[in-house]
Amino acid sequence: MDLSSFITSLVTSFIIFVILMILFAWLCTKPGNAVVYYPNRILKGLDPSDGSRSSTRNPFAWIREAYSSSEQDVVALSGVDSAVYFVFLSTVFGILLLSGMLLLPVLVPLHMTEKNPNIKDSTGKNAFDDLDKLSMAHLKEKSPRLWASVIACYWVSIVSYVLLWRAYKHVSDLRAEALSSLEAKPEQFAVVVRDIPLSSEASSRKEQVDTYFKTIYPDTFYKSLVVTDNTEVNKIYEELEDYKKKLRRAETIYADSKKVNPEGVPPTHKTGFLGLVGKKVDSIEYYKGKIEELTPKLESAQKSTFRGKQQGSAVVVFTNRVTAASAGQSAHARMIDTWTVTDAPEPRQILWNNLPKTYYERETRQYVVYFIVFLTICFYMIPIGIISAFTTLPNLKKLLPFTKPVLNVDIIRTVLGAYLPQLALIVFLALLPAFLLFLSKAEGIASQSHAERAASGKYFYFSVFNVFIGVTIGGTLFDSLKDIEKHPNSILDKLATSLPGNATFFITFVALKFFVGYGLELSRIVPLIIFHLKRKYLCKTEEDLKDAWLPGDLGYATKIPNDMLVVTITLCYSVIAPLIIPFGAIYFGLGWLVFRNQVLKVVVPKYESYGKMWPHIHIRMLASLLLFQATMLGYFGTKKFIYAPAIIPLPVMTLVFGFVCSRKFYRFFQSTALEVVASHDMKDRPDMETVYKSFIPPSLRGEKSPAEEFEEGV
Amino acid sequence: MDLSSFITSLVTSFIIFVILMILFAWLCTKPGNAVVYYPNRILKGLDPSDGSRSSTRNPFAWIREAYSSSEQDVVALSGVDSAVYFVFLSTVFGILLLSGMLLLPVLVPLHMTEKNPNIKDSTGKNAFDDLDKLSMAHLKEKSPRLWASVIACYWVSIVSYVLLWRAYKHVSDLRAEALSSLEAKPEQFAVVVRDIPLSSEASSRKEQVDTYFKTIYPDTFYKSLVVTDNTEVNKIYEELEDYKKKLRRAETIYADSKKVNPEGVPPTHKTGFLGLVGKKVDSIEYYKGKIEELTPKLESAQKSTFRGKQQGSAVVVFTNRVTAASAGQSAHARMIDTWTVTDAPEPRQILWNNLPKTYYERETRQYVVYFIVFLTICFYMIPIGIISAFTTLPNLKKLLPFTKPVLNVDIIRTVLGAYLPQLALIVFLALLPAFLLFLSKAEGIASQSHAERAASGKYFYFSVFNVFIGVTIGGTLFDSLKDIEKHPNSILDKLATSLPGNATFFITFVALKFFVGYGLELSRIVPLIIFHLKRKYLCKTEEDLKDAWLPGDLGYATKIPNDMLVVTITLCYSVIAPLIIPFGAIYFGLGWLVFRNQVLKVVVPKYESYGKMWPHIHIRMLASLLLFQATMLGYFGTKKFIYAPAIIPLPVMTLVFGFVCSRKFYRFFQSTALEVVASHDMKDRPDMETVYKSFIPPSLRGEKSPAEEFEEGV
Repeated sequence: MDLSSFITSLVTSFIIFVILMILFAWLCTKPGNAVVYYPNRILKGLDPSDGSRSSTRNPFAWIREAYSSSEQDVVALSGVDSAVYFVFLSTVFGILLLSGMLLLPVLVPLHMTEKNPNIKDSTGKNAFDDLDKLSMAHLKEKSPRLWASVIACYWVSIVSYVLLWRAYKHVSDLRAEALSSLEAKPEQFAVVVRDIPLSSEASSRKEQVDTYFKTIYPDTFYKSLVVTDNTEVNKIYEELEDYKKKLRRAETIYADSKKVNPEGVPPTHKTGFLGLVGKKVDSIEYYKGKIEELTPKLESAQKSTFRGKQQGSAVVVFTNRVTAASAGQSAHARMIDTWTVTDAPEPRQILWNNLPKTYYERETRQYVVYFIVFLTICFYMIPIGIISAFTTLPNLKKLLPFTKPVLNVDIIRTVLGAYLPQLALIVFLALLPAFLLFLSKAEGIASQSHAERAASGKYFYFSVFNVFIGVTIGGTLFDSLKDIEKHPNSILDKLATSLPGNATFFITFVALKFFVGYGLELSRIVPLIIFHLKRKYLCKTEEDLKDAWLPGDLGYATKIPNDMLVVTITLCYSVIAPLIIPFGAIYFGLGWLVFRNQVLKVVVPKYESYGKMWPHIHIRMLASLLLFQATMLGYFGTKKFIYAPAIIPLPVMTLVFGFVCSRKFYRFFQSTALEVVASHDMKDRPDMETVYKSFIPPSLRGEKSPAEEFEEGV
Repeated sequence: MDLSSFITSLVTSFIIFVILMILFAWLCTKPGNAVVYYPNRILKGLDPSDGSRSSTRNPFAWIREAYSSSEQDVVALSGVDSAVYFVFLSTVFGILLLSGMLLLPVLVPLHMTEKNPNIKDSTGKNAFDDLDKLSMAHLKEKSPRLWASVIACYWVSIVSYVLLWRAYKHVSDLRAEALSSLEAKPEQFAVVVRDIPLSSEASSRKEQVDTYFKTIYPDTFYKSLVVTDNTEVNKIYEELEDYKKKLRRAETIYADSKKVNPEGVPPTHKTGFLGLVGKKVDSIEYYKGKIEELTPKLESAQKSTFRGKQQGSAVVVFTNRVTAASAGQSAHARMIDTWTVTDAPEPRQILWNNLPKTYYERETRQYVVYFIVFLTICFYMIPIGIISAFTTLPNLKKLLPFTKPVLNVDIIRTVLGAYLPQLALIVFLALLPAFLLFLSKAEGIASQSHAERAASGKYFYFSVFNVFIGVTIGGTLFDSLKDIEKHPNSILDKLATSLPGNATFFITFVALKFFVGYGLELSRIVPLIIFHLKRKYLCKTEEDLKDAWLPGDLGYATKIPNDMLVVTITLCYSVIAPLIIPFGAIYFGLGWLVFRNQVLKVVVPKYESYGKMWPHIHIRMLASLLLFQATMLGYFGTKKFIYAPAIIPLPVMTLVFGFVCSRKFYRFFQSTALEVVASHDMKDRPDMETVYKSFIPPSLRGEKSPAEEFEEGV
């Protein structure tokens, strides 16, 4: 990529960003848009623009607000998981800031002032263009200046160790604080029991579970809730809810029509396909009739579910947090494949369908999924290659001749030339997360948050392998696949030799991500347009309107691997092309500000896992660091630097650091330390019946007393 | 080794065995020897020769008795650990029996009848001597008969999987039964707490521990016992006990002398070095004085120990077995390096000195020990090589010229020629266990049984590496060390090519072990002689006499690796030289009988770990199987058998089998399943004070009420 493309790319990205910022500053002051820009605050019953009314005219007010918010605010408004995400952003920002402070002023002049007469291009001029002169590629082979690069590698690594250690400790504190809080959460009193063996003695599963746990915990056992096969009851329940919603909508339409015409026009619709064919009926009457018909059907379905469809899995509620925490860590049965007891996830994020899966089914599914993921990671490169081939300008012209006149305009050509490959990559990457989440759920995981963590981990390895390694080695990979098969180590050499050429590509990639990505994120142009369209054409009731603006969650599972990819790219290039460091730093610094704003004002978390994401992030940070160190080792090799082995202690240090960290911190993230939940146990004992009821799925909650029905059902 | 040496070796071994058997049959009928041959029964208060009086004349009576005893007898008289040892012996016996039933009648004729004209020795005759003709070495390269060997490998492996699976299940049942027994054991109510952090708040360690556990277990916490530095108090206590023993002896001597002379001669001794110099004193008076002097000193030392020498470790007693079992499995603190809680070992086997070692000290020690063990395993070969060089007959004659006349006698030369190398090996191996046990204790392990298991594991890898691989590859190893360094896989080829030549050596090695080893074990000649010598010259009191015949335990930690070595040898040769199978089978069958006798009548176990040895045995059995399969793969290679890869699924199957077993069964051996201890929890609640007191070391037990003193001490 030449300098002009590079500058064009940066400038256009920046212009888009500025436009989006202005739009944001203008749009968010309009009261009608408050539900789009402050939904979190509105849902929490807070004043949307609290405290910032005077400064709403100032387009940078949100920055001040985001910056001055404390971690406690984040935890209070959005939970520990969000706070952990900020720890991640600020840790990486810190690493890049400290690295850049040493590397930029030292390495860039060293690279630039090196006189390297060896490499000429065909015209006899120096082959390096202006940007490449700032990179390590410009250093001569065996140059003593490479020592500076060695020291830089150590500096980056040590800064990372120190900041990661502090971050792990900090996250552990956050988790402990949240878990030991006075506010009792239902999941702290419960465990999930799976693999309940078939018993011929007990008359029902419920009796079996009750007997078993009463024997072991005579004093602290409260009640058990056996998981049932809810397919039928869920179907009826959803149908019923749908009719109720439609009834409310019809009533609103009727009431609205009365305002115009005192008589009112009762709404009607056709009962056939999509309301286009069939008999015309009075909507209100029709829906009422349907609801009356379905309600007893639901009740009888609930009863038959309680009775006949109990599965080999249960949620057991204890009267005591310590017992629940310790039960989740203890082996109850002699064999691993019966009576598996684990901590209960939050009721809202339990994946009920996965609970009754048996141990062997889970194990088998896991290995099958791992195999599919392995295939996906390895062979997604093929479509990526095909897409990059199609998205070059000459190919586009050939394939889509009608674009020719547009593509011949100079500015458009430059802009597209700078963007097309990156855009293709970004679009392509957006397709995968849903597939990986589906695979992770298919493993038989018990909770949504765990499934998202698992998907996130898979996505990270995918993106590093395919985007970073794939793009870097690029087309040469297929040609030299046989070479790599023979000498597996040569993949590092290949990576090392191809790295410097791709530095500018990745700088523009990162810049595009933060300027356009964060601009879109902050300005919420897409949700705003969708909301206004929906409000105008679809929404009839207040409920519909709320559904239209209800924000999503942070999208953790896909955000973190994307961020991790930027970490990997920035770390790997940090010493080779230090120019990438400020871009990486902006990515994480700006990200911190933008997401602070989003977390405080917009997004609503779907679940809380008390920072269980952190060990995943930590391990993957170390994987990136390891890749960086290995790449540098290879790159020093291509520079024929005989002191290259001076780098070897670094990967060893990383492995030792990772081992020590996981030994010291990890267990508390796997399960709850007893001292943490014990600290306030005696002070607040919540109403156990409420705790118990919160675990009953909505479709099984009866009109009057769900728990008793459940009891009766046995 | 030629055929005559081989026969000589077997015959002499057998003769020694027969002599020892006759001696045993004769000696054990003498009433005076009852304490040597039936100490276990005597200690348990049973009639020594219960039920067998009529048959004492029959030298084979013990066989019938051993054979007819049930597993329940073993558990009752000697505990689960001993029963597990028999499961091990019978499992291996079963594997070898089933293997032999197919391999001997099929493979031996196939090997023998092969016409192999290729290999001639210098005289033009077939190079194979009679024994080698029975081995696989006699098969031609690429011979289709090798298919039979492939099938044999599968047969041996599958038989092993099936029997090992059944054995693991059986041992797990044994453990569950013992743990859920009605008889309450103190260790089931307690946990060991290590790494107690320094606290500035609590006035003492005891208060700190009490507060901590009372918060977490308000209902089930009973008492804590903080580990103290007992060096001083132990010294005084031992001194005091020594004087008490001497006093009793002096009083007995005085009483005996009164029988001869009504006045009696009060015994005297000199106070100086070894009673040879110094002032002559009246022993009784002197010892009484010393005891009176030391008793208050002990009491004050006990008090100061309670007060001032509390360490960062404690034993915590709960009122409930389930709580103790679940506490041992739960993380109490957020960091792994504080408040480590593990299941308590039996009071008698706690290694008190190791308890206060901190987490980091333990980790460091562990890695240092592993490194030392690694060095030991790798470089003990050098002394083994030197010893084998010295113990050949020509060398002996050269080095010890005075043995020449003896060595020139034909019979002696044959006998020594057959035995010397094996004897050297056996003697050499006897030196190591104590060193390895010392190393294992230095790791900071909390209990004697765990330390012995660790030592046993180290010893296994040592003996397989040094004895089996070392002897097989022998001198060629050093020459070809560089080859192996270059091509690590070539060690398997080397092993494979050297195997057949050593088959007869190992057959005699196994035969020597069981004929002479078991003969000595059963006849107890050495303990008998020592006992009679002591009785005659040293024992004065009844107490002395009891000390003289008190039997040891089974010696588990060294027995199992020795047996495992035989397993490894027999398995590795099973297909190559099937003749070894009957010898291996006799080793384990006879061992089963001999040790049944010992366990029922002689040995007294030092501790009980409820079968925790089994997972160690299981893993090492699989390691042997893996070595067998890898060796066979190499050996088929040297036979240029193109279908050799048909063996490859076997090692994979072994790994999968091992993984599945450890997933399914291992957790219950790591910690106690709650359902097991819960089953009878309510029925028997022992006196908690007794449980608590059993954990107080003898040197800290006061005359009146040790526990209260301990309380006061705080």
